[in-house]
Amino acid sequence: LDFSSDNVTGVAPEIMEAIARANTGSASSYGADAWTARLQTQFSTLFEHAVVVAPVINGTAANALALSTCTPPWGAVVCYAGAHINGAESNAPEFFSGGKMVPLPGERGKITPESLDALLGSAVPILGRPVHTAISISQATDVGAVYSPAEVAALSHVAKNCNLTVHMDGARLANAIAHLRCAPGDITWRAGVDVLSFGSTKNGALAAEAVVFFNTALAKDFEHRRKRSGHTLPKMRFVSAQLEAYVKDGVWLRNAAHANAAASRLGRELADIPGVVIKGSVDANIVFAEMPSRMIEGLHAAGFGFFAMHGWARLVTSFNTNDEVVALFIETAKHFGQAQ
Amino acid sequence: LDFSSDNVTGVAPEIMEAIARANTGSASSYGADAWTARLQTQFSTLFEHAVVVAPVINGTAANALALSTCTPPWGAVVCYAGAHINGAESNAPEFFSGGKMVPLPGERGKITPESLDALLGSAVPILGRPVHTAISISQATDVGAVYSPAEVAALSHVAKNCNLTVHMDGARLANAIAHLRCAPGDITWRAGVDVLSFGSTKNGALAAEAVVFFNTALAKDFEHRRKRSGHTLPKMRFVSAQLEAYVKDGVWLRNAAHANAAASRLGRELADIPGVVIKGSVDANIVFAEMPSRMIEGLHAAGFGFFAMHGWARLVTSFNTNDEVVALFIETAKHFGQAQ
Amino acid sequence: LDFSSDNVTGVAPEIMEAIARANTGSASSYGADAWTARLQTQFSTLFEHAVVVAPVINGTAANALALSTCTPPWGAVVCYAGAHINGAESNAPEFFSGGKMVPLPGERGKITPESLDALLGSAVPILGRPVHTAISISQATDVGAVYSPAEVAALSHVAKNCNLTVHMDGARLANAIAHLRCAPGDITWRAGVDVLSFGSTKNGALAAEAVVFFNTALAKDFEHRRKRSGHTLPKMRFVSAQLEAYVKDGVWLRNAAHANAAASRLGRELADIPGVVIKGSVDANIVFAEMPSRMIEGLHAAGFGFFAMHGWARLVTSFNTNDEVVALFIETAKHFGQAQ
Amino acid sequence: LDFSSDNVTGVAPEIMEAIARANTGSASSYGADAWTARLQTQFSTLFEHAVVVAPVINGTAANALALSTCTPPWGAVVCYAGAHINGAESNAPEFFSGGKMVPLPGERGKITPESLDALLGSAVPILGRPVHTAISISQATDVGAVYSPAEVAALSHVAKNCNLTVHMDGARLANAIAHLRCAPGDITWRAGVDVLSFGSTKNGALAAEAVVFFNTALAKDFEHRRKRSGHTLPKMRFVSAQLEAYVKDGVWLRNAAHANAAASRLGRELADIPGVVIKGSVDANIVFAEMPSRMIEGLHAAGFGFFAMHGWARLVTSFNTNDEVVALFIETAKHFGQAQ
Repeated sequence: LDFSSDNVTGVAPEIMEAIARANTGSASSYGADAWTARLQTQFSTLFEHAVVVAPVINGTAANALALSTCTPPWGAVVCYAGAHINGAESNAPEFFSGGKMVPLPGERGKITPESLDALLGSAVPILGRPVHTAISISQATDVGAVYSPAEVAALSHVAKNCNLTVHMDGARLANAIAHLRCAPGDITWRAGVDVLSFGSTKNGALAAEAVVFFNTALAKDFEHRRKRSGHTLPKMRFVSAQLEAYVKDGVWLRNAAHANAAASRLGRELADIPGVVIKGSVDANIVFAEMPSRMIEGLHAAGFGFFAMHGWARLVTSFNTNDEVVALFIETAKHFGQAQ
Repeated sequence: LDFSSDNVTGVAPEIMEAIARANTGSASSYGADAWTARLQTQFSTLFEHAVVVAPVINGTAANALALSTCTPPWGAVVCYAGAHINGAESNAPEFFSGGKMVPLPGERGKITPESLDALLGSAVPILGRPVHTAISISQATDVGAVYSPAEVAALSHVAKNCNLTVHMDGARLANAIAHLRCAPGDITWRAGVDVLSFGSTKNGALAAEAVVFFNTALAKDFEHRRKRSGHTLPKMRFVSAQLEAYVKDGVWLRNAAHANAAASRLGRELADIPGVVIKGSVDANIVFAEMPSRMIEGLHAAGFGFFAMHGWARLVTSFNTNDEVVALFIETAKHFGQAQ
Repeated sequence: LDFSSDNVTGVAPEIMEAIARANTGSASSYGADAWTARLQTQFSTLFEHAVVVAPVINGTAANALALSTCTPPWGAVVCYAGAHINGAESNAPEFFSGGKMVPLPGERGKITPESLDALLGSAVPILGRPVHTAISISQATDVGAVYSPAEVAALSHVAKNCNLTVHMDGARLANAIAHLRCAPGDITWRAGVDVLSFGSTKNGALAAEAVVFFNTALAKDFEHRRKRSGHTLPKMRFVSAQLEAYVKDGVWLRNAAHANAAASRLGRELADIPGVVIKGSVDANIVFAEMPSRMIEGLHAAGFGFFAMHGWARLVTSFNTNDEVVALFIETAKHFGQAQ
Repeated sequence: LDFSSDNVTGVAPEIMEAIARANTGSASSYGADAWTARLQTQFSTLFEHAVVVAPVINGTAANALALSTCTPPWGAVVCYAGAHINGAESNAPEFFSGGKMVPLPGERGKITPESLDALLGSAVPILGRPVHTAISISQATDVGAVYSPAEVAALSHVAKNCNLTVHMDGARLANAIAHLRCAPGDITWRAGVDVLSFGSTKNGALAAEAVVFFNTALAKDFEHRRKRSGHTLPKMRFVSAQLEAYVKDGVWLRNAAHANAAASRLGRELADIPGVVIKGSVDANIVFAEMPSRMIEGLHAAGFGFFAMHGWARLVTSFNTNDEVVALFIETAKHFGQAQ
């Protein structure tokens, strides 16, 4: 009954099994194991590009470490004002890189080439002014919108004209790709992405994300950076095993498609209820709905978990969202809609 | 056949089962779950003291975060010169706290009240000079020596006379307690320890350590510090579940006793081989042995994994070290001893 | 002929004499001298409030150090988007404090209680989100606007309702006070300011600013912070002597009034030239003028130094701006205006 | 009467005049002025090597900034245990670079190639262990000993074999060179020094030091580093003017020779007093003398300022130490020696 986030879920069975299976014999610590080695090949194949894959345990670590490889302490990272890196990570990106986050406005978590171009174009190269060194975009965004490959490419184009590195926060990359039905390479390096925070925790893993370097030169000092921040696990194989199982046999896209479908249905059926307005299109696994306060209270009272403020409800579905629970949610919402 | 470290092992069955068992339903993220809540009570009971327990995923994170709560950016942490925090964590303690590590000499990883007293007594309170704010001691030490409660208390006494906080790096605390056969409280807060890095990964967990605050005032900003460093897990329940299972029913001490016994036997039987000298007493699960180089090479060639340099071998046993493997190691060592 | 900034000027004679006069005998180093001691009394009298005054050598140091006393590494400082601390100090505030700068929009460098209230009111107290711990306002602003005491008080009121500390960047405080003709206390602590960056370099000093603590509890660790950042001068007396002479006998306000009058005249007379539009009122010593590009080019060619972009010119006057040079500037501008 | 330090003195007349002389007209701020430009040529000539010279205001800033150019956040700087950077700068080097200071023992502030070689030779290239990236040596040392060019070259040789950068803390470089009577290049780049903290404050400047890059590639990001730490002065010309006057016409070496001679005389004549033992040779401007406590107390009571502890007195002479004051000190010391 919990639609409050996709990180309140448990672990997908394929991944839990992979963890159990990895518990065999001894393995070199700190990432010098066979599981982590295999990831390099597996992800290079997946993305159709030679990559360096560095497992970490959550999205904040992935983002902060990734950004530290592409911005110096006097640098500036351009991102959506409400991006996770700017508003939900307790200054971790600043801590790891020393750089400043420079917020841009946007619609539904997406920044535009126009506003990026305007920012970079008006930058004055005077000592002390922000030295823009990277952009960071979230795919899907925190409110569930998805960039098309063309949109990412357009942003990358502007960024690279000014020698900025392109980072993608892919905490919900699977949801975006399941929506786009494109190749993983299409929405990443082919669209100009240099380094990716590849998420899996929100979509079925226990605790596993990866920094994926398409521009492998950026990975040069990564081992030192990860160790220094306490993110190099002694028994790293158990993180790598999660990532391996996540990507294998399409588990990641299947899980994401399930979550997306549930969100889509929620959005569609809620929209039919008088008094409910769905904000934006439901691309990924998040629905923003304007609801009468009586409906919000009623749903909360009925035991449904979700975040709501000022008449807006955020509903997040996940890889294991139950169809019947969705139906029950709709039914309950209708009930409180009628009651009004 | 791997004696290279206790972090090359897999996961103890009780802990793997606990992880699987925790995979049920949804749970609030970032530590606001029932598993983490239960830890507070469980550890307070275990230590016979009201504590705050904050789970993290490895020892570097535990140490660096713990130290950041007891030393300001202009502070100095006194520790053994070869302590893990000073020589094996890529400057993580400096990164998290801003403080400086001030090394003291010592025997087998242990510092003495005399050298601590001499250091603090000769400190000149001039602006710019190191402001000693904490000591950090390792229990057991990196070479497997164990402080007695009286030894810890004597160090704490000197430290607290100068208003220093006492941190214990307990990456191998279980091995120390299994050796001492004392109550957990005896070797920690009763001996003056304010904050503890409580290890479990080396002794059977997948990835779980905890910062345990006996001086709970130090925990005040911990949530912010942990989040900012990327160490707050979305699905924290799976870390807490490991710690819960680790401590429950004495698993931790049974595992440690097994590892200690294997090391003790290794030390005892190696000592009988001509040409082998055991360095120090074997208190915990680490044996340092001076060996003929032919013996080292022979053992390596036979497939045994262990670290060796300049004629010294470091052998680390673990919770699942096999008796027959120990016997085989001894036999092989004897073989190459005779060959000499 | 240089209107490019007030920091391209030399040193006021009273201050240069004070430096020379301080060159007598030996004096304790690092601020333990008589000059620095006298500052405490002098500034407490000046502000009609017991203060702690800590000299530093420039505004970036003053701001970054001041902010580090009122925001923890996970904190956030709210400021105008284009504030000097946010856009002209190479991330120094982030470096010294660890905190994040949170930009607000505004007119002419001033933020409003309404936008501050909206920001703080919409803040969600979820771990990871920005923890707003301070506001920083510039008096006068970088474009020469001046907050009234009532405006500062209104911002402080909103800030303190949410337990935020109030910092004032007073790099041009003298210009603001000369404009307001109020007591120094009126625009600082009486209006809710806790800590002030007190500038003098732009208004006649060689290299001298001070962090002035009205809330003296914030000064607790200042000595350590200043030393750690390399801002504790061995021969501090020469900085303190500048500040003493700057404030003595009204030098600071006389200098600022002179600069303000020159800017006022520039603004008034430029406004009469066809094709020139003055942006905003000219409160302090900065004039923003929209000018025909031919006029800008002509003035530059005639040897006048000033910053111009996209048809806007920024003209900054100073304590020693020459009346005849102002007249010549106007005359030259008129000439190129007519030429058009 | 003050022998407590060479930073309690005032400013040499040539330098004070240069400051006054620089107070003419306007000059571009932040180092884009003619004085700073001239320094580049002047120092390149002085050192017989193309250098980049970056003025700062004190030795802590020079050292911390210099070290930040040659060690990454996971690096380690090897230095004498009691070096100023390790024990008298409130963790500034760690703050600016992120790196760790690794202390070596030594005699009179000097480290040896043997101990450096032993340290580097025993370093294990395991992730997490200190990555030694630089050495830092003090010339003259904090206790007044001077490295010969051959000694510096020998240390550089060991350092460079392991790809370490060589930093020299030259807060008292003039005293060292006045003692050695060698060319400035001989004791710096010809002996392998890559980057130098060039001091002048202790030897007559008001507040002026410089980071001098012999390896100019290290200077790449210096402007950003200096700005970010608040060490880029608006009116930089007044710092550069000090350095220019300091080096011009041999002022620096004349001042240093005077200070050295005074120290030498102090040492020589004190050594003749029964009960007084001079520690080490008096190379530079510092004398360490073991004295009867009655003598120390008597000298203090007579108004002489100097640091003393445990029967040891540290006497520091300077560019303006008065011959008669030296004579009076000796006389007074003799008086209290006889009294005993």
